[in-house]
Amino acid sequence: MSKQGPTLEDVAREAGVSRATVSRVINGVRNVDPHIQKVVREAVERTGYTPNQAARALVTRRAQTIALVVSGAGEEADDDPHTNSFMARVFADPFFGRVVTGVVGFLRPRGLHPVLMFADSESARRDVVAYLRRGSADGALVVSTHAEDPLPARFAAEGLPAVCFTRPAVPAPISYVDLAHRRGGLLAAQHLLERGCRRPATITGPLDMSAGQERLAGFREGMELGGIRYVPLAEGGFTLLSGVAAMERLLEEHPDIDGVFAANDLMAQGACQVLHESGRRVPQDVAVIGFDDSSVAVTCQPPLTTVRQPVEEMAATMAELLHEFIQGERVEATSRIFEPELVVRASA
Amino acid sequence: MSKQGPTLEDVAREAGVSRATVSRVINGVRNVDPHIQKVVREAVERTGYTPNQAARALVTRRAQTIALVVSGAGEEADDDPHTNSFMARVFADPFFGRVVTGVVGFLRPRGLHPVLMFADSESARRDVVAYLRRGSADGALVVSTHAEDPLPARFAAEGLPAVCFTRPAVPAPISYVDLAHRRGGLLAAQHLLERGCRRPATITGPLDMSAGQERLAGFREGMELGGIRYVPLAEGGFTLLSGVAAMERLLEEHPDIDGVFAANDLMAQGACQVLHESGRRVPQDVAVIGFDDSSVAVTCQPPLTTVRQPVEEMAATMAELLHEFIQGERVEATSRIFEPELVVRASA
Repeated sequence: MSKQGPTLEDVAREAGVSRATVSRVINGVRNVDPHIQKVVREAVERTGYTPNQAARALVTRRAQTIALVVSGAGEEADDDPHTNSFMARVFADPFFGRVVTGVVGFLRPRGLHPVLMFADSESARRDVVAYLRRGSADGALVVSTHAEDPLPARFAAEGLPAVCFTRPAVPAPISYVDLAHRRGGLLAAQHLLERGCRRPATITGPLDMSAGQERLAGFREGMELGGIRYVPLAEGGFTLLSGVAAMERLLEEHPDIDGVFAANDLMAQGACQVLHESGRRVPQDVAVIGFDDSSVAVTCQPPLTTVRQPVEEMAATMAELLHEFIQGERVEATSRIFEPELVVRASA
Repeated sequence: MSKQGPTLEDVAREAGVSRATVSRVINGVRNVDPHIQKVVREAVERTGYTPNQAARALVTRRAQTIALVVSGAGEEADDDPHTNSFMARVFADPFFGRVVTGVVGFLRPRGLHPVLMFADSESARRDVVAYLRRGSADGALVVSTHAEDPLPARFAAEGLPAVCFTRPAVPAPISYVDLAHRRGGLLAAQHLLERGCRRPATITGPLDMSAGQERLAGFREGMELGGIRYVPLAEGGFTLLSGVAAMERLLEEHPDIDGVFAANDLMAQGACQVLHESGRRVPQDVAVIGFDDSSVAVTCQPPLTTVRQPVEEMAATMAELLHEFIQGERVEATSRIFEPELVVRASA
């Protein structure tokens, strides 16, 4: 190269720290004081020093990139951007935005940024695995939207660093963060009982997913503790329209329902719409409880009482666990289970 | 290295093509027949060949990565993932998910994946510029959520490859895709006039953004052509709650309104909620038209008549333009303007 740019030494002089410290900050080594990290980054900016990413990657053998994989199972690829129903569905749920917010909140202060990948077909899954295998990303954060997603088990089999949001349905020696879903269902039942509900019903999530099963199990357990043995249910798919359809079915068979627990906020919103159209008032005639505490809970009419899932915190922890694996500070698969919380608004 | 893995030759033999062809596919050179690309990728997968990304980047001087930057102006960084209002706001609007869908739809068949970055403060903007300057990404796709976003001009000044979604408010020699917003406002006015509306009002977007200004200008123009000189307006911020507040103000001052054009679907949804609470029927008493044709338009009660913005297509074109710059097939800044379309549902 003919032009001599600023060197590591220039940055060290500018920041008033050692060359080794600059190197550690730039290479993302942990345990560097956050204040010193900031000073060094500012010195990098002022001097215009541009570490050669490619050359550095050859030395550290790290891409300095994390893949954020949104994964479904069994669906076929649909590369027409106008009709890709998988991506459209992912983004229609505010849940995913909260995951990104939490992940970015952890990664960004460390100079890392997520590469967004969608594994919605077998060929897309192969691409994701190959991307990680050749080191284009240092590890993967996996958000499965369907039961029986084969991707977590494949990462585990390949020995690729990965952490899942929620426990994989297909058992695999892989780390994950999750919620105590059963306890969330129990909280919903207790609140409806305390309000005086005696004829409750529930709109469940997909019953082949553990989140769907466990929220239902917790709700039934809570109702049994309150002396209610039978709870009518309709299965939904975590979408608004599936909540509408489920509520219509329930009302047809059980027109005297006085409380509904929906396994997420989008379905609870759909239930409120149907109840309203049928001339019933929420919460006076039928109390409604959702799950998640997403932005939908606030904008729903009426605003939803809901079981809060601390998605941002869970996602940040997922990123932190992966970071520990990549840094070599963690070797064995582990899990972190978060506690849900009841948030009371107008709907119940 | 002690272990000898599969080579480029192995892949070429497996695919039944020349070594040069394999190399061209792997290095993302254009004008390779899609079928041959597929055959080569499958051969790469079967042989387990892992091109050394870092070594390759040293040769091609390309990161094989595209930054997808969501950019705001002037706001301060907020690294607490629980309260980051910028990211929460971005994801509360289905618009952003449509952008990602379009971008991924273009990039994925080319083996590329977007790195997601948020530029919501001056320090975050500096990080994004530094990221591109040091070649960690080959170019940027910029989605500005605020007027006066300084990022596009900075990319242009630095000579970094970038394409914007919508024309930058701060003029800069930079490429962009955009919509004929004014024409969209005109379509909304014509439809309300055809329905027989005589006392229309409008909820505008932020009037310091060209999308806000132009949708308003087109709506006023259309109403004037129909003989209506005065259109009451309330400014909103493209969020549901700002639509609620704007509709409340309008009804207070003009209780006899019979038609409303809201500059996006989220605000139209808020308007419908307020109209409904005030005892007015949509569309019988007040017709409502939104803008975007996002998922909200379908789930709104009643489903929204709206001006469709082909966001996925625009985003795919934005990615295509950037790809052309990176491949060296395009040098001068350019723009692509898309035509809006009226989609008639129940609300007007």
